[in-house]
Amino acid sequence: MNQITPTPDVFENHESQVRSYSRQWPAVFDTAQGSWITDENGKRYLDFFAGAGALNYGHNHPVLKTALVDYIMRDGITHGLDMSTVAKRDFLATFTEKILAPRGLDYKVQFPGPTGTNTVEAALKLARKVTGRSSVINFTNAFHGMTLGALSVTGNSMKRAGAGIPLVHATPMPFDNYFGGATDDFQWMERVLDDSGSGINRPAAVIVETIQGEGGVNVARAEWLQALAELLKRRDILLIVDDVQMGVGRTGQFFSFEEAGIVPDIVTLSKSIGGYGMPMALTLIRPDLDVWGPGEHNGTFRGNNPAFVTSAAAIEHFWSDDTFEKEILAKGERIRAAFTDLAHRFEGVSTRGRGMVHGLVFADGDLAGKVTSMAYDQGLLAETSGPSDEVVKLLPPLTISEEDLDHGLSILRQATETVCS
Amino acid sequence: MNQITPTPDVFENHESQVRSYSRQWPAVFDTAQGSWITDENGKRYLDFFAGAGALNYGHNHPVLKTALVDYIMRDGITHGLDMSTVAKRDFLATFTEKILAPRGLDYKVQFPGPTGTNTVEAALKLARKVTGRSSVINFTNAFHGMTLGALSVTGNSMKRAGAGIPLVHATPMPFDNYFGGATDDFQWMERVLDDSGSGINRPAAVIVETIQGEGGVNVARAEWLQALAELLKRRDILLIVDDVQMGVGRTGQFFSFEEAGIVPDIVTLSKSIGGYGMPMALTLIRPDLDVWGPGEHNGTFRGNNPAFVTSAAAIEHFWSDDTFEKEILAKGERIRAAFTDLAHRFEGVSTRGRGMVHGLVFADGDLAGKVTSMAYDQGLLAETSGPSDEVVKLLPPLTISEEDLDHGLSILRQATETVCS
Amino acid sequence: MNQITPTPDVFENHESQVRSYSRQWPAVFDTAQGSWITDENGKRYLDFFAGAGALNYGHNHPVLKTALVDYIMRDGITHGLDMSTVAKRDFLATFTEKILAPRGLDYKVQFPGPTGTNTVEAALKLARKVTGRSSVINFTNAFHGMTLGALSVTGNSMKRAGAGIPLVHATPMPFDNYFGGATDDFQWMERVLDDSGSGINRPAAVIVETIQGEGGVNVARAEWLQALAELLKRRDILLIVDDVQMGVGRTGQFFSFEEAGIVPDIVTLSKSIGGYGMPMALTLIRPDLDVWGPGEHNGTFRGNNPAFVTSAAAIEHFWSDDTFEKEILAKGERIRAAFTDLAHRFEGVSTRGRGMVHGLVFADGDLAGKVTSMAYDQGLLAETSGPSDEVVKLLPPLTISEEDLDHGLSILRQATETVCS
Amino acid sequence: MNQITPTPDVFENHESQVRSYSRQWPAVFDTAQGSWITDENGKRYLDFFAGAGALNYGHNHPVLKTALVDYIMRDGITHGLDMSTVAKRDFLATFTEKILAPRGLDYKVQFPGPTGTNTVEAALKLARKVTGRSSVINFTNAFHGMTLGALSVTGNSMKRAGAGIPLVHATPMPFDNYFGGATDDFQWMERVLDDSGSGINRPAAVIVETIQGEGGVNVARAEWLQALAELLKRRDILLIVDDVQMGVGRTGQFFSFEEAGIVPDIVTLSKSIGGYGMPMALTLIRPDLDVWGPGEHNGTFRGNNPAFVTSAAAIEHFWSDDTFEKEILAKGERIRAAFTDLAHRFEGVSTRGRGMVHGLVFADGDLAGKVTSMAYDQGLLAETSGPSDEVVKLLPPLTISEEDLDHGLSILRQATETVCS
Repeated sequence: MNQITPTPDVFENHESQVRSYSRQWPAVFDTAQGSWITDENGKRYLDFFAGAGALNYGHNHPVLKTALVDYIMRDGITHGLDMSTVAKRDFLATFTEKILAPRGLDYKVQFPGPTGTNTVEAALKLARKVTGRSSVINFTNAFHGMTLGALSVTGNSMKRAGAGIPLVHATPMPFDNYFGGATDDFQWMERVLDDSGSGINRPAAVIVETIQGEGGVNVARAEWLQALAELLKRRDILLIVDDVQMGVGRTGQFFSFEEAGIVPDIVTLSKSIGGYGMPMALTLIRPDLDVWGPGEHNGTFRGNNPAFVTSAAAIEHFWSDDTFEKEILAKGERIRAAFTDLAHRFEGVSTRGRGMVHGLVFADGDLAGKVTSMAYDQGLLAETSGPSDEVVKLLPPLTISEEDLDHGLSILRQATETVCS
Repeated sequence: MNQITPTPDVFENHESQVRSYSRQWPAVFDTAQGSWITDENGKRYLDFFAGAGALNYGHNHPVLKTALVDYIMRDGITHGLDMSTVAKRDFLATFTEKILAPRGLDYKVQFPGPTGTNTVEAALKLARKVTGRSSVINFTNAFHGMTLGALSVTGNSMKRAGAGIPLVHATPMPFDNYFGGATDDFQWMERVLDDSGSGINRPAAVIVETIQGEGGVNVARAEWLQALAELLKRRDILLIVDDVQMGVGRTGQFFSFEEAGIVPDIVTLSKSIGGYGMPMALTLIRPDLDVWGPGEHNGTFRGNNPAFVTSAAAIEHFWSDDTFEKEILAKGERIRAAFTDLAHRFEGVSTRGRGMVHGLVFADGDLAGKVTSMAYDQGLLAETSGPSDEVVKLLPPLTISEEDLDHGLSILRQATETVCS
Repeated sequence: MNQITPTPDVFENHESQVRSYSRQWPAVFDTAQGSWITDENGKRYLDFFAGAGALNYGHNHPVLKTALVDYIMRDGITHGLDMSTVAKRDFLATFTEKILAPRGLDYKVQFPGPTGTNTVEAALKLARKVTGRSSVINFTNAFHGMTLGALSVTGNSMKRAGAGIPLVHATPMPFDNYFGGATDDFQWMERVLDDSGSGINRPAAVIVETIQGEGGVNVARAEWLQALAELLKRRDILLIVDDVQMGVGRTGQFFSFEEAGIVPDIVTLSKSIGGYGMPMALTLIRPDLDVWGPGEHNGTFRGNNPAFVTSAAAIEHFWSDDTFEKEILAKGERIRAAFTDLAHRFEGVSTRGRGMVHGLVFADGDLAGKVTSMAYDQGLLAETSGPSDEVVKLLPPLTISEEDLDHGLSILRQATETVCS
Repeated sequence: MNQITPTPDVFENHESQVRSYSRQWPAVFDTAQGSWITDENGKRYLDFFAGAGALNYGHNHPVLKTALVDYIMRDGITHGLDMSTVAKRDFLATFTEKILAPRGLDYKVQFPGPTGTNTVEAALKLARKVTGRSSVINFTNAFHGMTLGALSVTGNSMKRAGAGIPLVHATPMPFDNYFGGATDDFQWMERVLDDSGSGINRPAAVIVETIQGEGGVNVARAEWLQALAELLKRRDILLIVDDVQMGVGRTGQFFSFEEAGIVPDIVTLSKSIGGYGMPMALTLIRPDLDVWGPGEHNGTFRGNNPAFVTSAAAIEHFWSDDTFEKEILAKGERIRAAFTDLAHRFEGVSTRGRGMVHGLVFADGDLAGKVTSMAYDQGLLAETSGPSDEVVKLLPPLTISEEDLDHGLSILRQATETVCS
């Protein structure tokens, strides 16, 4: 690319200690296509990580690539802040026509800055502004981002400690199945909301992931989500679904909450919404809640127009009918079957997931870490999640072929067999 | 781009009320090249706004465009989180060799998420973690971003109100010249820091812009910045320079603080660092302060590799010698001269700025708004800033030709003459 | 007393709307002796309210009165800040010898300002200082005081709203029996403390009342308190027992936590500790936690020496052997029997309590309010508590005669019969 | 008093390390009368400390003592919460007739709990409730109390650190003469309040002491207070005067703000309001701001009726005409003359004060400490204040005889001569 001769330790010498993934996967990656990623030595890796959910359509999908290069070649506007552009209008029209309208959803679209944490911050700010309340309810093992507003509603204690100030204004409640069925759903939450002496500050909103990816692939049941939505509606508390990681088809349907039939008041999207892995985020707002003043929440990179182009192209290509959704569900079933088999065969191993996000749960983080480490040696990228990193978390591209999927699953099977035998 | 027939009111119908620039510039823009941007009807606008400072090299610069398209065409990795990639290594090596080393600067580079607000949040978190203190000092009329941590150190009351919670942990101090020279510099700040009874929580850090762009093009003098740096060093308080808008050559030199000869403990960069207007941000950290744990601050879009490619290409192209810097200073002088002339001719008009950022200050926001509105009608994009939007703020591409620069300045001159006569 | 002719509406004209008890008991009271209080018209009222627990020894007990008048007559120091005085030394020696030593308790005594809320503030500050943690766990329906630190750990939403700022740094947990036995004790609390992803800030301390008086006479079982103490000890979290209302014999033993056999790290005392109803408070501190710097928590009225005199006299008189404790338990049994009988007879009425604090629980606040209102008309003072004021709360002087106790109980029985029939 | 034989080290063994005054004055005091206090060995000390301002009428004044003993002997109600009592009505009527009415003041009276910190908390809560704003402005070197709300507006960094949490919601501004006249009054404060980009949260109220006792006897000029009141009025920000230490005649007039002719929106009183050194506090509220709900701020010891009795008796005795005020001013002049003389004679010594509060300012805390230590040895109690304890602070009883006053001043003169020569 340029004439600099890279020293072998440029990352060690010049990049901050905060780097993380590069420690577990020490290869220097160079190119990528579909489900495969190639390092500078030409070694290929099957990618079951997919940009932590930002590459649902795989790496550098040819349809999107063509749209992107065409746009760049014709000098389409790259950076547009929140000016009106043709690319943005096309995106808005496509998103409305292909995604919202067919699902009977009516949302205003905010472009809040191109990251997940930024759309979460926008959602929380708006919920507080609308209700005049400062407090928010989040859930155990939630992950919503690293800026102070989003970090306040995130569970991980190591990441919270990084704030350097006490994180306040949020109260965690037990996520679905937190007690393994030993307790009625919402027993605690409903009680404290209705007890004027509970000491809980009445919340502006509840923010929830339908499936907690970082939290360990914890899947909320449809009936739990329905009960949550109903509970909040009766109490005039807003429901924010953070669909940053689980949206855009990861669970089969475009939005992860569709299966439950609920309609959140605010939805956050990022990661795969741009299609090609470029930064983009949306905040979807129930129209009557769109009380923002002009510029009240802003940011420089709200108008990443190349991402609007690839996003619109991806929606056109994948979401004009239900073919893609069916494929996802079928491939998800394949993963489920493979993991269920492993869970049956090995004591202390279990599985959970929905659509094409699945976790293989081990007794502890050591075992899970050994499995992903062995997988890496065999050319498979998969990460761990959960409070003790005890869950091998599978997020393959939704576009993966059945052959590649089976290949990756066989690597994980062998690793599990080795580690657990 | 696609087959959707856009309805004329797609923005009104579907985009949130939070949109802002599209209200003052109602055109729907489509393509852009260099200093010019073209709307869907083919009308061309000279761009003295430049993505609020994100397009220092102009729109779609051909050198960067070639590098970008080559990278995309060869399936270079697009989305890499914080995995090591060839593009990232090239960027790190180039940035170190061409920018840091020649300036005698030694920083660890953090990729904190691709936006200005995110690098500010990372900087504040690190400063608090390092010092164990929660409080931060900011300055009057500062602008650092919209997520809760960055918003807490931002001055604008309308934007602060959007938080929906009391913004705390920050105490504003008077920026340079806040009292027009009537008071010794740092009289108040130095006194309260040294008075154990002042009631000021001892701060972890001071965050400062060398020139406050959003605040109204308020320029800190070199001696003020030097005194600030010295004052903090003696008290073991960290100095964070937020160079998101004023860095990457806007003032002539690559970093805006170079003129003052100070060395901040932490530097934030974003906007133009990516070169092509795509989201990218850096947090530069004094090596001994790099006490992050792995993953303690993370985010999905830390590895926007196409931006690494255009960033490295831009550094190679523009910053291998001092030609570009000299051009910027010369063009800046041209702006200064034109604005000084207007200030002399019209009562109540004044000017301030440095390098290629200049403000034309009017008596109130109405006058300034009329000037930018007339400029827009004449095909020139320029925005206002300042607490009452009373400053016409000029941020032309640094690569603008002298002819275009003069053309734009003449439009502003005519508008000023009309409005002020 | 003096020559001012009181206008009938001096309270309405000159006292703030915040006044409360005077609204439900409109008499203007004048004198009091033992369990009886007399209004300016000579009407006598039996006092089952006893200064909200501040008059455990009844009004103006002759033994204490003699000690007090003697002290005043001989010009004993009235106001001593935290200077050493003979009266304070006598109190300290008496308290140590008669109260702490016989119970095997070893505490340093802080005089934190003479109110319950002040000792709670001192306890919370010290717990935070010792542990370096900011967060505290409180319980549903807790009441700890009205200043900001104490109010943050108080449950009542009306009182919390009075703060005018968001109350943070505290997370409520379910008090004993919050779910009527449907859930294992500490299921939620233990889980979130041990789950590093729960999102709960690790607390400095847990603050608990053994019986929640204001919260509705909610009685924690001994085994619940034991489990709580054990749970915290294993996790290095401090246990603060707020014994402001339930201490000083209210439950039979001097400290309300004695029955459970637990030893709190910090204990707060106020209300009846002064003996004669004058302001006094103590913070009892495990010696190794007494890391205060001199004057780090101060206040003008820490040395209310007349209260030290009456306090020491009361301890001498009532706590030199176990006679008083036995009388309390016997009279408590009498109340329990009377209330149990009412609970059996009337649908929707139940009772709870321990020692000489008992609640008669009605279906709603209306019924309870009618009972106390009728009682007032019959010459009995009793207040309601609980989140909906649905509990008639009995706090008679511990020194009440059996005849007076039976008289008061009969008034309540008649009122209940009238209201519930 | 009782039969306990005090061990010599009962304070060391049993009282918390937080004790402070007892360290500098190690005597064990026993009785007191007027301006004199006597230790257990019969040694007499002249008291220029006067309970930190709580004993303006001296120790155990015979008129008040008689009223108090009479009240106790006739079994007047001691503890009354906020029930209406004859003693409270008498106090209210007397206070209204003798204090408020003659001064043209119209306030509702809140009994907020009997301490200074409690009335400050009540004032801040009410100001926030009325305005809907959370932020408050305080002044450098302010002292308002130790509970979290009051501590947030207190300047001393050691005491602030005791909070164990970041103290927020308050922004300090420079007190009068903070820059020794080098800066226009309110330059900074007025500017940031009017600059919508200053980053200052718009405050609910400003809380100010007319003379900062703990802060080092810093005296605000009448014109400064007038300008402050005017500045706030025009901006709809409430003015709270904390008259806890400087009220009740300390400066000559009953309220310390009378000299300036301002009328605060809220006034806090405590310390000497009770007359006899017993805990009592008031919050005076502009009638239209009295928007409290019943019981929204409460507390057990709001009804310390013996203090109402001594308070009313003191008002009758001292404030029925202007004799007392004239005596105070005359004696204050005597102190001023003596201190001015010392200031003239010794390099580095200066003085400031008003009425009967005066500070003798030394170059550092060591010198001032030596002076008070020598004074103690000579039988005089005087304390130091100021950020470095560099000010010998004189608060003699207002009732002191001229002879005693001269005697004490001569001790201080000799100590100063010894230390400074």
